[in-house]
Amino acid sequence: MFDKLREECGVFGIFTKTVSDVTMYAYTALYALQHRGQESCGIAVNDRGVINYKRGMGLVNDVFDKEALESLNHGRIAVGHVRHSISGLNNHYSTLPLVVRHIKGPMAVSYNGSLINSQELRESYELKGAIFHSLSDAEVIAYAVTEARIRCGSIEASLEEAMKKIKGAYSLVIMSPQKLIAARDPNGIRPLCLGELPNGEGYIAVSESCALNAVGATFLRDVLPGEIVVISSDGIQSIQTHCANKGSLCVFEYIYFARSDSRIEGVWVHEARMRAGEFLAQEHPVDADVVIGVPDSAIDAALGYSKQSGIPYGLGLVKNRYVGRTFIQPTQEMRETSIKIKLSAVESVVSGKRVVVIDDSIVRGTTTRIIIKMLRESGAKEVHVRLSSPPFCNPCFFGTDIDSRASLIANSKTLDEIRDNIGADSLGYLSIENVEKVASGANCGFCSGCFSGRYPIDIPEEIPKDKFDSRLSQ
Amino acid sequence: MFDKLREECGVFGIFTKTVSDVTMYAYTALYALQHRGQESCGIAVNDRGVINYKRGMGLVNDVFDKEALESLNHGRIAVGHVRHSISGLNNHYSTLPLVVRHIKGPMAVSYNGSLINSQELRESYELKGAIFHSLSDAEVIAYAVTEARIRCGSIEASLEEAMKKIKGAYSLVIMSPQKLIAARDPNGIRPLCLGELPNGEGYIAVSESCALNAVGATFLRDVLPGEIVVISSDGIQSIQTHCANKGSLCVFEYIYFARSDSRIEGVWVHEARMRAGEFLAQEHPVDADVVIGVPDSAIDAALGYSKQSGIPYGLGLVKNRYVGRTFIQPTQEMRETSIKIKLSAVESVVSGKRVVVIDDSIVRGTTTRIIIKMLRESGAKEVHVRLSSPPFCNPCFFGTDIDSRASLIANSKTLDEIRDNIGADSLGYLSIENVEKVASGANCGFCSGCFSGRYPIDIPEEIPKDKFDSRLSQ
Amino acid sequence: MFDKLREECGVFGIFTKTVSDVTMYAYTALYALQHRGQESCGIAVNDRGVINYKRGMGLVNDVFDKEALESLNHGRIAVGHVRHSISGLNNHYSTLPLVVRHIKGPMAVSYNGSLINSQELRESYELKGAIFHSLSDAEVIAYAVTEARIRCGSIEASLEEAMKKIKGAYSLVIMSPQKLIAARDPNGIRPLCLGELPNGEGYIAVSESCALNAVGATFLRDVLPGEIVVISSDGIQSIQTHCANKGSLCVFEYIYFARSDSRIEGVWVHEARMRAGEFLAQEHPVDADVVIGVPDSAIDAALGYSKQSGIPYGLGLVKNRYVGRTFIQPTQEMRETSIKIKLSAVESVVSGKRVVVIDDSIVRGTTTRIIIKMLRESGAKEVHVRLSSPPFCNPCFFGTDIDSRASLIANSKTLDEIRDNIGADSLGYLSIENVEKVASGANCGFCSGCFSGRYPIDIPEEIPKDKFDSRLSQ
Amino acid sequence: MFDKLREECGVFGIFTKTVSDVTMYAYTALYALQHRGQESCGIAVNDRGVINYKRGMGLVNDVFDKEALESLNHGRIAVGHVRHSISGLNNHYSTLPLVVRHIKGPMAVSYNGSLINSQELRESYELKGAIFHSLSDAEVIAYAVTEARIRCGSIEASLEEAMKKIKGAYSLVIMSPQKLIAARDPNGIRPLCLGELPNGEGYIAVSESCALNAVGATFLRDVLPGEIVVISSDGIQSIQTHCANKGSLCVFEYIYFARSDSRIEGVWVHEARMRAGEFLAQEHPVDADVVIGVPDSAIDAALGYSKQSGIPYGLGLVKNRYVGRTFIQPTQEMRETSIKIKLSAVESVVSGKRVVVIDDSIVRGTTTRIIIKMLRESGAKEVHVRLSSPPFCNPCFFGTDIDSRASLIANSKTLDEIRDNIGADSLGYLSIENVEKVASGANCGFCSGCFSGRYPIDIPEEIPKDKFDSRLSQ
Repeated sequence: MFDKLREECGVFGIFTKTVSDVTMYAYTALYALQHRGQESCGIAVNDRGVINYKRGMGLVNDVFDKEALESLNHGRIAVGHVRHSISGLNNHYSTLPLVVRHIKGPMAVSYNGSLINSQELRESYELKGAIFHSLSDAEVIAYAVTEARIRCGSIEASLEEAMKKIKGAYSLVIMSPQKLIAARDPNGIRPLCLGELPNGEGYIAVSESCALNAVGATFLRDVLPGEIVVISSDGIQSIQTHCANKGSLCVFEYIYFARSDSRIEGVWVHEARMRAGEFLAQEHPVDADVVIGVPDSAIDAALGYSKQSGIPYGLGLVKNRYVGRTFIQPTQEMRETSIKIKLSAVESVVSGKRVVVIDDSIVRGTTTRIIIKMLRESGAKEVHVRLSSPPFCNPCFFGTDIDSRASLIANSKTLDEIRDNIGADSLGYLSIENVEKVASGANCGFCSGCFSGRYPIDIPEEIPKDKFDSRLSQ
Repeated sequence: MFDKLREECGVFGIFTKTVSDVTMYAYTALYALQHRGQESCGIAVNDRGVINYKRGMGLVNDVFDKEALESLNHGRIAVGHVRHSISGLNNHYSTLPLVVRHIKGPMAVSYNGSLINSQELRESYELKGAIFHSLSDAEVIAYAVTEARIRCGSIEASLEEAMKKIKGAYSLVIMSPQKLIAARDPNGIRPLCLGELPNGEGYIAVSESCALNAVGATFLRDVLPGEIVVISSDGIQSIQTHCANKGSLCVFEYIYFARSDSRIEGVWVHEARMRAGEFLAQEHPVDADVVIGVPDSAIDAALGYSKQSGIPYGLGLVKNRYVGRTFIQPTQEMRETSIKIKLSAVESVVSGKRVVVIDDSIVRGTTTRIIIKMLRESGAKEVHVRLSSPPFCNPCFFGTDIDSRASLIANSKTLDEIRDNIGADSLGYLSIENVEKVASGANCGFCSGCFSGRYPIDIPEEIPKDKFDSRLSQ
Repeated sequence: MFDKLREECGVFGIFTKTVSDVTMYAYTALYALQHRGQESCGIAVNDRGVINYKRGMGLVNDVFDKEALESLNHGRIAVGHVRHSISGLNNHYSTLPLVVRHIKGPMAVSYNGSLINSQELRESYELKGAIFHSLSDAEVIAYAVTEARIRCGSIEASLEEAMKKIKGAYSLVIMSPQKLIAARDPNGIRPLCLGELPNGEGYIAVSESCALNAVGATFLRDVLPGEIVVISSDGIQSIQTHCANKGSLCVFEYIYFARSDSRIEGVWVHEARMRAGEFLAQEHPVDADVVIGVPDSAIDAALGYSKQSGIPYGLGLVKNRYVGRTFIQPTQEMRETSIKIKLSAVESVVSGKRVVVIDDSIVRGTTTRIIIKMLRESGAKEVHVRLSSPPFCNPCFFGTDIDSRASLIANSKTLDEIRDNIGADSLGYLSIENVEKVASGANCGFCSGCFSGRYPIDIPEEIPKDKFDSRLSQ
Repeated sequence: MFDKLREECGVFGIFTKTVSDVTMYAYTALYALQHRGQESCGIAVNDRGVINYKRGMGLVNDVFDKEALESLNHGRIAVGHVRHSISGLNNHYSTLPLVVRHIKGPMAVSYNGSLINSQELRESYELKGAIFHSLSDAEVIAYAVTEARIRCGSIEASLEEAMKKIKGAYSLVIMSPQKLIAARDPNGIRPLCLGELPNGEGYIAVSESCALNAVGATFLRDVLPGEIVVISSDGIQSIQTHCANKGSLCVFEYIYFARSDSRIEGVWVHEARMRAGEFLAQEHPVDADVVIGVPDSAIDAALGYSKQSGIPYGLGLVKNRYVGRTFIQPTQEMRETSIKIKLSAVESVVSGKRVVVIDDSIVRGTTTRIIIKMLRESGAKEVHVRLSSPPFCNPCFFGTDIDSRASLIANSKTLDEIRDNIGADSLGYLSIENVEKVASGANCGFCSGCFSGRYPIDIPEEIPKDKFDSRLSQ
């Protein structure tokens, strides 16, 4: 998939015993999580009980210069966040981590997910005197924890209590003056795992394992669906009162969100994508000369299709590494340029060939249409499009920001109409049956609601229809 | 006074019936209030009930570029804020206006002052479940208003209720979806006045009248101590239940904070400063050839001293208009440069003369010492220092951020010691008796607590001693 | 004068024996020269024969951050430059100092002035193979020096030779690997003086003496008209073969360009401005209550008018110190705001008074009209405008960038028409006779060509008419 | 190869008959050429004879914002340039295109290459009065053309004359008021090709064909070694007086510099790299389970090795797309992070496998050592390194900026020592014999001097030894 779906958020937390400057760990980890969110980012560091933070719009590279890092550079506990993009909202009001002050101590909250009862909770707190600064569900969660905390003793007991109220998808990393807490909703819809620093220096909680390698930590285990992990100077403690079932991990994490080199619930993302490609070759075989993938996310599936079909894999499309977000749109006379400047066909690979091109999904169809045109202009005789996921026919209530146009094209057009619209010789989607098998062997069940319409939680009827378009998920 | 005391904040609000882009008014007014705070600033605009805002560290010039203004550029009500500087704190957490969301409607709060019971209130709200994002008293006030609002109907009734709880100095401008509220604490310690746009287009509430001229509005009247002014499409309404006494305006507003061309409580700041100079000439006469002032704030008092004493006024010191905040400190070999680059002696004015130099106060003495040295190097035969305010011998609890070194020099050294330390031929401070008369004819009484130790409100004993150094006033 | 005429350039050079980081001297001096040019600036530093430099558009404050200064921070000789603004040209091609490489050694050239035969010289060099990078006369001068240098031995002998060819106004500071050269055209139209560092550490050449104080140096003497001063490890050497006459210093340097605390040719600028005010009081007396000046440049003349007339001086207009160059123009509804935000009338000074307002010149009249309107709105009963220079009736060929509208209003309207146009009760310009006396006692004669039409050099007829509008002077 | 060798420059020129805003074409093309130089870039546009330009340090994305593009946005002819990085020099003095003014008309010069007689020419021009602003050979070329032009009539005749003097590698795009000129040195060491806009709207000259696709143009042909192509309103004219031989294209253009989807002298870069991988498999076979490539430049060769050897290709290393040039180096405790943050091993691909890893060259060995360590930590049983080029044993005089450490490791260590140093199980370089065959079928001969020591031009003995380290090539 090429620049279509809006991505997830990424969370990070670190607790060390001996290291005195965890900021660089957070900074480095956020680089490794950047694919989960490019709109804003932030780091909060605990300097002997005082929480300092820096948040801003833009990439890690934009927000954190030397001065910013140095201003945070003392502390043994930190949390970080990268956030995805939803255009049209004044999102700078809602950058994370959320940092709040309270008589029971300050708290920083990093969050990935989407609550289904946030509006209801928000109103109930407001009627008790709460005021909200942001649009983020993280602030609702902070109130739920705080409300419990006035009665309960510890922050973990408060979170345990709060989790009885908050419903939906959430992977949380919370920092208190003394502790780092990692928690996952009872369905485990968003990933979260634990790592260990060398020599027992400390622990990390992070959305994806790829960030562990970046900071020199080793993978320990996934946080269980519903589990609360408490990391303190006493070590790791696990609270499992909300652990009821196997969980329902978002299957689209494997297909698109996560990075190839991450392992989620025991299954490598690269392997799952390879398998998606293999299933695709079984479901939609075609007589062709070369299999190519749309970089970067569909390369793995293309290798899987090639392996299963025996058709050679080729480097048929290359991506320009220098096109930033600020590419200025050219004039009318140069239409298609904004895609052509990012992607190029390699003529020597596709010329005179029957080409199978693998992508992970179709949104509006425009990008796919231009890619097919480029391939034909470079001499491809046939272009067969294969998609490593089923069509989006349903909304996601748990944080996948599906472009409504993606749903539209899938619901309003037949397969043949889409094929004709994009100009392909043939078109094939992965089946719902097989998409649930791409990560077979995982320690969990899956949510494929956006494809199948079957959700692990009952969705209240009163959730406004327009949430389908503009969910503010984190 | 030259770059010594930390300054106040400035608040602004506008309500119009017909204008659709009040952002430019706020922007222009903040320029005119910039002398009250250079650390951060912000504007919040009400676009048919939705509050958008932009806040940032730096001058109005730094924070608001064309893009920022355009992003806010719709709405008929707005509030703005400039904030002063206290080094050492992570003040970017506490930029204003504070914008909060609530089931009763959003609210934006601009605030100048300092509460004496903010810590007590903060804790009581936290024990009811409140969480705080900032260190600002504005957030405490927001909770006090919100708490009342759940019970009371209107925002003005809620503020009226809240004012029973909050104690200290505050000038407030609050924006709700439909209204603009201006209010001053019952002692009226910080200034706040009302203006009117031409042709009855709308109203403005602002810290100083100088900002009214800048936006083309005319002065209406000061907000009364304790008054709540409600501006809505129904016009102006006044609530005076907290108006008990004549008030105790901070006298230092006349001496230093406010701009020469502002009128506060019926007295022009320029006139008050002239009078301070005149008193000074009466209290500390000296046989001399020329009277000069340290630009910019002591020029008026120098003219007053000249007028009273008959000694001619001269342009003996000029200020470099191009030295920004980022002047990079030169090497050891070039000591004194950072002052010399900002201020120069005009040799043709002072050479061979007995010079009276007027300043408004002394902090550490370093700057005064260098100024005297510059004047002597330029040929001054004698240098007589006169200060248009008494020595700072007491803390301020109401928002004047007195450098503790200013208090130190005044408390720990005798007048003769200070004179010798700065290298003056003679030294004279304005008396406490006369400082309270500089604005005689005003519609109010005065607070001169930082000079006299007499405060209009009882100061709780438990206020931590270190608040003297590092009050977070707004 | 308030933001009307475009300003001059400023040049600086330093040669030291012992100091190893002259960059900070150049940086500090450019701040003190900033009033002579705000469009661009630059510093070139000689690090043991290698010339490094940094130039850029904007104020010293914009172009030189810590990193830029550190990148230059080695060397014992340096030159600097500030440049004025001419809108509409791509002036970033022509920032100075010019730095050129040549087999006889590199050279950096700082320049203030305007040549009258630059086009002719430029073409003659081009026909010999020269190529030009910039539009600056400095490059023409560099070619003239280089051409001579191939034949002559030393850089000073080459400059001596070159000065036979270049005609017009120029104050030059040239740096070679071993020497610093300061030179002034034979008419000495633009100022240039020498200063000495403490303890014989080195020498400085600079446009105005005010910059000497800023860096802790003392005034030595003015460079003579036509003189070439060579500063090297052998000390100071003077070449006076081009010193023919007393010179013709631009009188507008005293009226407007230079800073109050500078001394040029033995006369203090402040004194000359006072005297202009005194002459004005004699030429155009008026019965009034207060004399005020338009800040900053007309304050001195206002004090002179007050002294001569006996009418008290008052602080009737104040300038906002925070309005940078990027103030964003407000909407139509807020016309006049861009001036009102920069200047304010002090009502308590002018209300009910007959006011004499001193400015140094009128360009279009718009600004003066708005100032008068502001004064009347603040209660002034009468407003009498007095200008401390005669009307601009002629072009300047030597670097004063007179706005053609200034010439237009002076040539096309009668005095009465201008008075009515700006809305003054009376209007008086300083006479040409007296403007030439403001600096009486100076060591030189004067050029008042822009007022009188009499120039110290014959102006070639073929100088294009449009040079009047858009001279590229430096 | 991963971030090791410094890259080449890229040149671009466009001539249109009908399009009025060629700036967007230049901007888009420079994005497509960005891989050839990331240090600085620039565009010059010809607006009816007047050349405007913008140059700056940084990526196209950094230098050209909307305002910069709009300031250039008129003209029918343009040239552009991207420049590579050589640390330690003040390269901002030498950004291109060079723009010079001359009585025969202005000229803008874009240049890729390195002259071997530039110092000699530079001195000869200086002795005739020339002055140089930059360190770039482009300025020497400009003087050579200008010198000829005073005698010759046209710019193309002047270039033809100049080419008799300048010796070395150069691909030039020159813009005059009426023409666009493209020229290549007689050995054709650097690439340059021509493209055509749709509907005969105009022509393009550019370093690599990949940029033609980006702007919607089609490939026409390569410029011949020694050819001068003149594009004007009369169409295309070819001057072939310097076309003597087949040429000697730099073979490293295929191996590393150029982009996979470019075609140079009739051979696709992707094909040449595949072939390099195939030769490598023949020369250095190994019993292994998976072949992986170091992204991005070694992926093609890895596919070639896989194809030839039959060992499956795997996605064993992935590159982080978000790591910009400003990644801040972490503390000592996190060594290796700067590479680990950019590259990750995909554990599921390499774990338990015997891995062949293909790179294009080794510089210091540090990066390769860390990559091997990462692969072993991810479970690789064996790691066999194969390089798609021979060792660098000789300097390049034609613009390839070989890191002297690359030469050092190749000259000072045996193959076994390098293998042990990097920790590989085996190591194999492509042979010199085969590197010259990777582009067999091309219309030209090759220069492989950096590998073989055999150069197409006699290198003068007096070329300073240190040029090996710090050549300023463009």
